[in-house]
Amino acid sequence: MTTREDCLLRDAADPLAPLRDQFELPPGVIYLDGNSLGPLPRATPDRIAAVIRGEWGTDLIKSWNSAGWIDLPADVGDQIAPLVGAGAGELIAADSTSVNLFKVLAAALRIVGEDDPARCEIVSERDNFPTDLYIVQGLSELLGGRYTLRLVESADEIPAALGPKTAVLMLTQVNYRTGALHDMAALSAAAHAAGALTVWDLAHSAGALPVALNDDGADFAIGCGYKYLNGGPGAPAFVWVAPRHVSRFRQPLSGWMGHARPFDFVPGYEAGEGVARYLCGTPSVLAMSALECGVETLLAAEPYGGMAALRAKSLALTELFIERVEARCAGQGLTLVTPREAARRGSQVSFAFDSAWPVCQALIARGVIGDFRAPDILRFGFAPLYIRFTDVWDAAEALAAVLETGEWLEARFAERSAVT
Amino acid sequence: MTTREDCLLRDAADPLAPLRDQFELPPGVIYLDGNSLGPLPRATPDRIAAVIRGEWGTDLIKSWNSAGWIDLPADVGDQIAPLVGAGAGELIAADSTSVNLFKVLAAALRIVGEDDPARCEIVSERDNFPTDLYIVQGLSELLGGRYTLRLVESADEIPAALGPKTAVLMLTQVNYRTGALHDMAALSAAAHAAGALTVWDLAHSAGALPVALNDDGADFAIGCGYKYLNGGPGAPAFVWVAPRHVSRFRQPLSGWMGHARPFDFVPGYEAGEGVARYLCGTPSVLAMSALECGVETLLAAEPYGGMAALRAKSLALTELFIERVEARCAGQGLTLVTPREAARRGSQVSFAFDSAWPVCQALIARGVIGDFRAPDILRFGFAPLYIRFTDVWDAAEALAAVLETGEWLEARFAERSAVT
Repeated sequence: MTTREDCLLRDAADPLAPLRDQFELPPGVIYLDGNSLGPLPRATPDRIAAVIRGEWGTDLIKSWNSAGWIDLPADVGDQIAPLVGAGAGELIAADSTSVNLFKVLAAALRIVGEDDPARCEIVSERDNFPTDLYIVQGLSELLGGRYTLRLVESADEIPAALGPKTAVLMLTQVNYRTGALHDMAALSAAAHAAGALTVWDLAHSAGALPVALNDDGADFAIGCGYKYLNGGPGAPAFVWVAPRHVSRFRQPLSGWMGHARPFDFVPGYEAGEGVARYLCGTPSVLAMSALECGVETLLAAEPYGGMAALRAKSLALTELFIERVEARCAGQGLTLVTPREAARRGSQVSFAFDSAWPVCQALIARGVIGDFRAPDILRFGFAPLYIRFTDVWDAAEALAAVLETGEWLEARFAERSAVT
Repeated sequence: MTTREDCLLRDAADPLAPLRDQFELPPGVIYLDGNSLGPLPRATPDRIAAVIRGEWGTDLIKSWNSAGWIDLPADVGDQIAPLVGAGAGELIAADSTSVNLFKVLAAALRIVGEDDPARCEIVSERDNFPTDLYIVQGLSELLGGRYTLRLVESADEIPAALGPKTAVLMLTQVNYRTGALHDMAALSAAAHAAGALTVWDLAHSAGALPVALNDDGADFAIGCGYKYLNGGPGAPAFVWVAPRHVSRFRQPLSGWMGHARPFDFVPGYEAGEGVARYLCGTPSVLAMSALECGVETLLAAEPYGGMAALRAKSLALTELFIERVEARCAGQGLTLVTPREAARRGSQVSFAFDSAWPVCQALIARGVIGDFRAPDILRFGFAPLYIRFTDVWDAAEALAAVLETGEWLEARFAERSAVT
């Protein structure tokens, strides 16, 4: 049986432990919500201050060239690429996850439609993050209802749902509620065997575990900058296309930044080379610079074994949390909804509980910040860059105390609100 | 004849002069490019530092509620609204100008299409800012070429181009190259008389002159946050819909932030109330906060007469610049392309010149920052919040000196690059 002393020893022996010093973490807080908003990297305030005063304030418009602002989407994209198994020049930072999803869906449907116009279904999970489903609905409605969203109730049903009508299989690699991890290689192969393309949302996997876009045969992918990439609230997202589609794909948000020669100011759109054509309008330089700082916190893990080492620690943390909660909260009515099998889960642990919301509030009052996902999910993210084994221990103890004392009952009538 | 002493007296007597103190302006620089990137407001560095350290770094995910991050798009929108003749709750800050244009074009075409599906033309100017034309092309291509972009060569041709085929008249209120100002009321009326809707891009008018979206009968509008609104490089843009369309419009970038109940996480999209449905993904809080500081520099003019007083000063500045350049550079081959009539120009003055690019570079070397627009335009923006009459005088003298000395010849072979 693990003890808190064991956790202290594991932290002391953890080669990744120094990476925690990259972050500003408020004292007295155990932050298990980095899967919603990553914490502040220590480097970010000075970097942003330098961009504001040293670049914008001093060199003004010249900074687009002199400070390299114009290259930020590609530069930050190249930094993110190795974290998700993409090559240099294959990935770009731009817009929001939702906007990027619109781009890649339209691009994928265009390619599929050219080869086989009869394909009319987009297969996904009912439990996918809602914005992904909403974007399909918006695009399909714009296209006169040409495409139907076919939702499966569980991952097991996906292969059987793929067939001659399938245009695109659209999945979030790690489920935002349950933390269940899809087998990207197997599902991409299944989609291809059915003649469809894949669109992968990496919101809860990029920076949380090794993603292998190229090796696993993905076609299109998007991801979020403000969760495990620590890019700050509402950070730009990223977007990727497999090299085999790069010369062919087109996306409809054809703004000037994606033009082959944006500063020629010609009236006809001509798509830029490669992923540059994913760009649309002018990106926020402050937001891009903060994202760069966030991505650098993950690149700093390279000398320690990179994403593979982070993944090993992440699984150890989530396994310990499951073990501790099940030991300390047995009989309290919590139901583990995250897969117990390591290979099938991301970097979070979720429990279903009837009164999940007030329990979440009571935990926050104790300094343990997880979050609530409607209707009944308690969600805890374990970002291996900065979460310690003792944090896991203490969080489980806090959860047990909240349930045992009944202090969560007091939170039942507080105003209810929750964000991302 | 005006003298430099007259300019000093005008600056001394200018009631708007104190507004300049709101900005960090590098010494020795005359910044005539605020129509491309507004300068740094003095309030911005501290505001952003407080958002980063005091909100993100301290309260982490809670800041979405406790610091009001979730309300920023609507709050900043309400701040911008009076600057462009819009009411409270009618305008929202979101995404980029290009992305917002896609939303409003799709929304406008949807409304027109329901009433009269045969309308298939989007009328605009060949000289419109290219991204506006590119977005039409991207949307039309996505819709199988259902819409055609009909481009007129000059503003005079617009009324005759409107007819039973016109779906949307899409114009930028102030032309980015020439600075010519459209008559929004007359052109909106002409479009409506032809049965079409209007989409107005306010990139070079919002914050530069009083815009009267409601009074002038506009239907949809978008605008830029990083030019006259001083929101910082790549600041979020804004988007507006006329109240008469607000219950009916739909836009296809239907991300979760525009959902009626985003935190219910239900699989079906249900558009939020009013302009909230223009939102798509999660906005950058840093970029939104910087935009808020920028907009506040304009709201600070309210006690001095607001946009009307700024407009009067702007016209006096541009008139003086035209007068001085024509007096000092006569016979040098400069051709004024900005309308001489005050009511027909925005807040910039542009001259055509065969070697515009090296002249622009030589001026920058002298500390006078205007910009070059292909193929042959020298463009000078006069933001009345911080440009002085003596700046106008000195800029005209610098231009005369560059042309007289021939020092621009040295810049001809320098590497060419330019960014909006």
